[in-house]
Amino acid sequence: MSRADGRTPEQLRPIAFHRGWLDHAEGSVLVEFGRTRVLVAASVTEGVPRWRKGSGLGWVTAEYSMLPRATHTRGDREAVKGRIGGRTHEISRLIGRSLRAVVDYKALGENTIQLDCDVLQADGGTRTAAITGAYVALADAVTWARENKLLKAKAEPLTGSVAAVSVGIIDGIPMLDLPYEEDVRAETDMNIVCTGDGRFVEVQGTAEGEPFDRDLLNRLIDLGAAGCAELTLLQQIALEETRA
Amino acid sequence: MSRADGRTPEQLRPIAFHRGWLDHAEGSVLVEFGRTRVLVAASVTEGVPRWRKGSGLGWVTAEYSMLPRATHTRGDREAVKGRIGGRTHEISRLIGRSLRAVVDYKALGENTIQLDCDVLQADGGTRTAAITGAYVALADAVTWARENKLLKAKAEPLTGSVAAVSVGIIDGIPMLDLPYEEDVRAETDMNIVCTGDGRFVEVQGTAEGEPFDRDLLNRLIDLGAAGCAELTLLQQIALEETRA
Amino acid sequence: MSRADGRTPEQLRPIAFHRGWLDHAEGSVLVEFGRTRVLVAASVTEGVPRWRKGSGLGWVTAEYSMLPRATHTRGDREAVKGRIGGRTHEISRLIGRSLRAVVDYKALGENTIQLDCDVLQADGGTRTAAITGAYVALADAVTWARENKLLKAKAEPLTGSVAAVSVGIIDGIPMLDLPYEEDVRAETDMNIVCTGDGRFVEVQGTAEGEPFDRDLLNRLIDLGAAGCAELTLLQQIALEETRA
Amino acid sequence: MSRADGRTPEQLRPIAFHRGWLDHAEGSVLVEFGRTRVLVAASVTEGVPRWRKGSGLGWVTAEYSMLPRATHTRGDREAVKGRIGGRTHEISRLIGRSLRAVVDYKALGENTIQLDCDVLQADGGTRTAAITGAYVALADAVTWARENKLLKAKAEPLTGSVAAVSVGIIDGIPMLDLPYEEDVRAETDMNIVCTGDGRFVEVQGTAEGEPFDRDLLNRLIDLGAAGCAELTLLQQIALEETRA
Amino acid sequence: MSRADGRTPEQLRPIAFHRGWLDHAEGSVLVEFGRTRVLVAASVTEGVPRWRKGSGLGWVTAEYSMLPRATHTRGDREAVKGRIGGRTHEISRLIGRSLRAVVDYKALGENTIQLDCDVLQADGGTRTAAITGAYVALADAVTWARENKLLKAKAEPLTGSVAAVSVGIIDGIPMLDLPYEEDVRAETDMNIVCTGDGRFVEVQGTAEGEPFDRDLLNRLIDLGAAGCAELTLLQQIALEETRA
Amino acid sequence: MSRADGRTPEQLRPIAFHRGWLDHAEGSVLVEFGRTRVLVAASVTEGVPRWRKGSGLGWVTAEYSMLPRATHTRGDREAVKGRIGGRTHEISRLIGRSLRAVVDYKALGENTIQLDCDVLQADGGTRTAAITGAYVALADAVTWARENKLLKAKAEPLTGSVAAVSVGIIDGIPMLDLPYEEDVRAETDMNIVCTGDGRFVEVQGTAEGEPFDRDLLNRLIDLGAAGCAELTLLQQIALEETRA
Repeated sequence: MSRADGRTPEQLRPIAFHRGWLDHAEGSVLVEFGRTRVLVAASVTEGVPRWRKGSGLGWVTAEYSMLPRATHTRGDREAVKGRIGGRTHEISRLIGRSLRAVVDYKALGENTIQLDCDVLQADGGTRTAAITGAYVALADAVTWARENKLLKAKAEPLTGSVAAVSVGIIDGIPMLDLPYEEDVRAETDMNIVCTGDGRFVEVQGTAEGEPFDRDLLNRLIDLGAAGCAELTLLQQIALEETRA
Repeated sequence: MSRADGRTPEQLRPIAFHRGWLDHAEGSVLVEFGRTRVLVAASVTEGVPRWRKGSGLGWVTAEYSMLPRATHTRGDREAVKGRIGGRTHEISRLIGRSLRAVVDYKALGENTIQLDCDVLQADGGTRTAAITGAYVALADAVTWARENKLLKAKAEPLTGSVAAVSVGIIDGIPMLDLPYEEDVRAETDMNIVCTGDGRFVEVQGTAEGEPFDRDLLNRLIDLGAAGCAELTLLQQIALEETRA
Repeated sequence: MSRADGRTPEQLRPIAFHRGWLDHAEGSVLVEFGRTRVLVAASVTEGVPRWRKGSGLGWVTAEYSMLPRATHTRGDREAVKGRIGGRTHEISRLIGRSLRAVVDYKALGENTIQLDCDVLQADGGTRTAAITGAYVALADAVTWARENKLLKAKAEPLTGSVAAVSVGIIDGIPMLDLPYEEDVRAETDMNIVCTGDGRFVEVQGTAEGEPFDRDLLNRLIDLGAAGCAELTLLQQIALEETRA
Repeated sequence: MSRADGRTPEQLRPIAFHRGWLDHAEGSVLVEFGRTRVLVAASVTEGVPRWRKGSGLGWVTAEYSMLPRATHTRGDREAVKGRIGGRTHEISRLIGRSLRAVVDYKALGENTIQLDCDVLQADGGTRTAAITGAYVALADAVTWARENKLLKAKAEPLTGSVAAVSVGIIDGIPMLDLPYEEDVRAETDMNIVCTGDGRFVEVQGTAEGEPFDRDLLNRLIDLGAAGCAELTLLQQIALEETRA
Repeated sequence: MSRADGRTPEQLRPIAFHRGWLDHAEGSVLVEFGRTRVLVAASVTEGVPRWRKGSGLGWVTAEYSMLPRATHTRGDREAVKGRIGGRTHEISRLIGRSLRAVVDYKALGENTIQLDCDVLQADGGTRTAAITGAYVALADAVTWARENKLLKAKAEPLTGSVAAVSVGIIDGIPMLDLPYEEDVRAETDMNIVCTGDGRFVEVQGTAEGEPFDRDLLNRLIDLGAAGCAELTLLQQIALEETRA
Repeated sequence: MSRADGRTPEQLRPIAFHRGWLDHAEGSVLVEFGRTRVLVAASVTEGVPRWRKGSGLGWVTAEYSMLPRATHTRGDREAVKGRIGGRTHEISRLIGRSLRAVVDYKALGENTIQLDCDVLQADGGTRTAAITGAYVALADAVTWARENKLLKAKAEPLTGSVAAVSVGIIDGIPMLDLPYEEDVRAETDMNIVCTGDGRFVEVQGTAEGEPFDRDLLNRLIDLGAAGCAELTLLQQIALEETRA
């Protein structure tokens, strides 16, 4: 059974990482999962938030946002509404937690890396694209920090890599990396975040329609883990290229 | 291996449902998971939000909040800060989704049930206690709606029951229903929401420390599903009692 | 002339103080004036707000809030609306002022006691129940502070007790401690806050319908003062019991 | 015993009403109680708030605010802080209630009068000056409404007049109409709002220092009632002058 | 061709400066441009904002606001809406920039002067009246600072004076100092801010209807510069009078 | 005299228009003025805001925002701060006014075009790049509206084109199109918005340092007008290309 865009159920959309897309940021990437496009900027600052001062430990945090016309119909700006919506908060927290899973705060020292993930165009899977891209921007930011002597010699703040992908059940079939039109049809929607060595950082599954049984749950987790492994490879390839 | 409160790893804390704790609400319950105490009020109103009018379908929604001194040290009120925090938003959304998984909107008709879950005392597992208690309050609110002729004859808005529990890995051992002191020590933290017939509504697992592998993930899911099954039984018993 | 609930005009509703209702708070009480139920938590912290540092003086402050379904029909949460309403502000200020009237800041030393008064169920007189209960929670918090060596030897931060009650004129007759259904019918509504030795801390009377004359004003004040004296006695009895 | 400004304890400060101070407002007055200067604008609009539509009844409401440099040292603007303070809310509500005490909603018909009381300079007693001035602006606005045929023939929306004054105990002596320097020294502070026929609309007394006994309370009420009677006379004189 | 109020196109409205209108402020003026009335208070405080500390330089800033009934129909308060509107922000920034153009921060030393411009009545040209009046209040505040020894001997924080006026094209004719009724009809609207020696601080022109050509632009600038020169003279006269 | 980037004083930076950069928006362009990069999305919706309904007239409005890491150092998100800053408000209003200057509301009919201008990277002149790009996106959105039959036959909602550029005085020399490093050094900063036929829509000049005289003002206006003429040509070329 093939999908609207011709993919098999276990196939990713075309993935692209445009590293160094910004001139000022210490790390940046424009990541594409099909037509989903997220601009990630990693900002390195010396020092940490007040509650962490003097601990010798660094900090990594993330903020997610969507441009008003990233979507098919325009949404109001959260800045204009004067409050961050629940979905935005939830995704920002997820991205931060996911990246922190591969950070060695001690090796980072008292430096902060802020990851800004702005969705320029949304076509499903924006949070998983953001996490996958954020790892690439974070890696470049760490390189920058090392080159600029913010890290101690031989310190390696990254203990591994992290990637994320969505999976869902459509007409009873588990499918990988759902675009918007599949996402709205999915009976169950799951986001899987894995480290590069295949372990799990986050597993979030939600029955949108019927509750799902243990067998489907297993198949979704397997599919997501395989997708993350593939993304890990693509991240490595991207990071091996000489940055523009 | 036993736990600080003497439980085995697969044992729930003492669970209590005080139905009809409020005089005005159409359904209400003070639910206790050990020292965690959540007051759930279910408010039934005729009519639905504007975007749903004329559809013939009902609506169920939830709000979660914590009293400032529910916790060991006092937290500032969100009303005073003028904004709802990300965690509050996230949990409110989770509770609403979980309950909606067992609601037949058509059978509910154009009525709205609002579930207010206020944590009077927090000792870990407040969101799972809230979901588990909210089902009881919802069931009572549906009974009220039936008795007050808001529903059509023979309409049954509830397609099943829903319960939730937390599980976590402590010192490598999966444990059920974590109190606060275990929660802060857990390497991985997972919330499982199941229907009464044993299917999954939500599976949310987060590695707080080390990423977890597939085997541990399976064991956590099994433990959580078993805990939900036990809570389902306790909900049934509570609902069979004559309301005060 | 008797009232809907069988009381005489000068009779209080059944009053109950459940001390130590919370496990974490330094002082706490669930106070009941008939069906009005307010949970008061007293939080003790070392130190005072910035504007008071170095003065050697302590501070006592209060916040009042109502759960959304405390009332007959659900009200929106102030945290969701993003702003505290005028009524909430006004009552919080009243509670704080009333309790501070019996506090010796010097004897308290540079410690802060925060009183959180959350109305779980409202049936008239929530502010007076809150003040009356807050005194009990405050007394327990002071005992806690003494036992935990936050106070100097022999320091007595409480110069007396404080209690409050509502009075109103219904069909020309002054009545004590109005429940909701009487409150909405009252022509004049007054809240009286007295110290245990019978002096006045606050007198707030408002003509809801007809302006009132001097004679009625005198009778209301007398009735309120008598009610406060009775509440003072009930507070003493509650505080003499060994805390659970 | 005389006061810093030479007054006797029962004497008002110089009072002035500048009617028609604004060109656009339907009623307006710049009222002075000594150096306290409040600009009151009464705005008449046809129609009432949504919750009152179709009732045939009118509405009167008030907002109080202080210019940032009304006071000895500059205060931040509430608009800049993004929230109305508790004191502002409380006073706005008091002014609205006080004026509504002399309004016959039926005679007003479905019209709204909004009273904006902006303190241009504060020297104690701003809320009582605002109420006393607001009555004058309201009376002019009612005249405007009559001349502009918004009222039915012979309808009289005002059932009387209203005036307010502060009283306080300084060094054990009750004093009338306290300026700022006396206000900060007062042991007890009371605001009295009376109708023109000498009945009470609001009585609000607060012990700032020592609680007060019944005798002092009586003397304060008497002094305030006498002050209101004098202000009633001054309002009448002001309203009899031909408006500029 | 004459105007509704009988002025020629190049004539200002009657201008008045009431210096020392407030008792507490270090400098204050009630400025009138016809029926436009703006109360400006200049507050002097020792010290500067945190970002400027230790620089030896002073700071001057401004806030603009309009009373709700300054206009023909009542507008909602920004404090009630909980946010400052774009227009208010824009004008506050313009006033601050304009005044800072004639301030020598070094001579001012580490002192801050805050200019509060509150529009009591609006009839067009409120921002230009505010700037023109703010200079007068600023000059008085500087005098106060000198007399109170906040400035070094011979320090002169003002390098010149500043005045502002509006100009616009009505029916093809450039006109000076537009009242509200002309302002709404103007095809092009321009605000000119000049120093006392005839140089430009701000030039802001906006085509409300048809875009304008270079010739009209020149004529507007000439007219505005002439208006500012006249206002400069009136400011000097006002400042030469002995302050009340 | 040449500039840091090798340009002559009257030369623009490299300008690029990437039309159709977004898949969902009715018109979109990624516009570049050197390293300044602004993404403009034009959203067409049938209907107009409530205050304009039934008028037969359309509406065009704009919002400007900057990604947090568009700048050299990261800035906080306005959505997180919960309020739009004054600068953002001011620029949004400027963009909207500028575009509306070339819109025939009647020909547009009751349709709304919303222009979202998000600065992805900032290097001076973001507001002028936004206006210049917004015209291109607007033109594409109008074409889309025509093709989708939202406009009447032969209706032409655009009466011309609009472009904008910054000019400034550096070391006494007027220069065109300032990048960030020149902008901070400029003594005077001016933004000029012109229609395609060379008339003025907005002229906004500010003395950052010394006030400027009439001669410099003239030279700045001439330079800006010439820059706009050049940008108009580049807009035409971009719009003549077949859209991707």
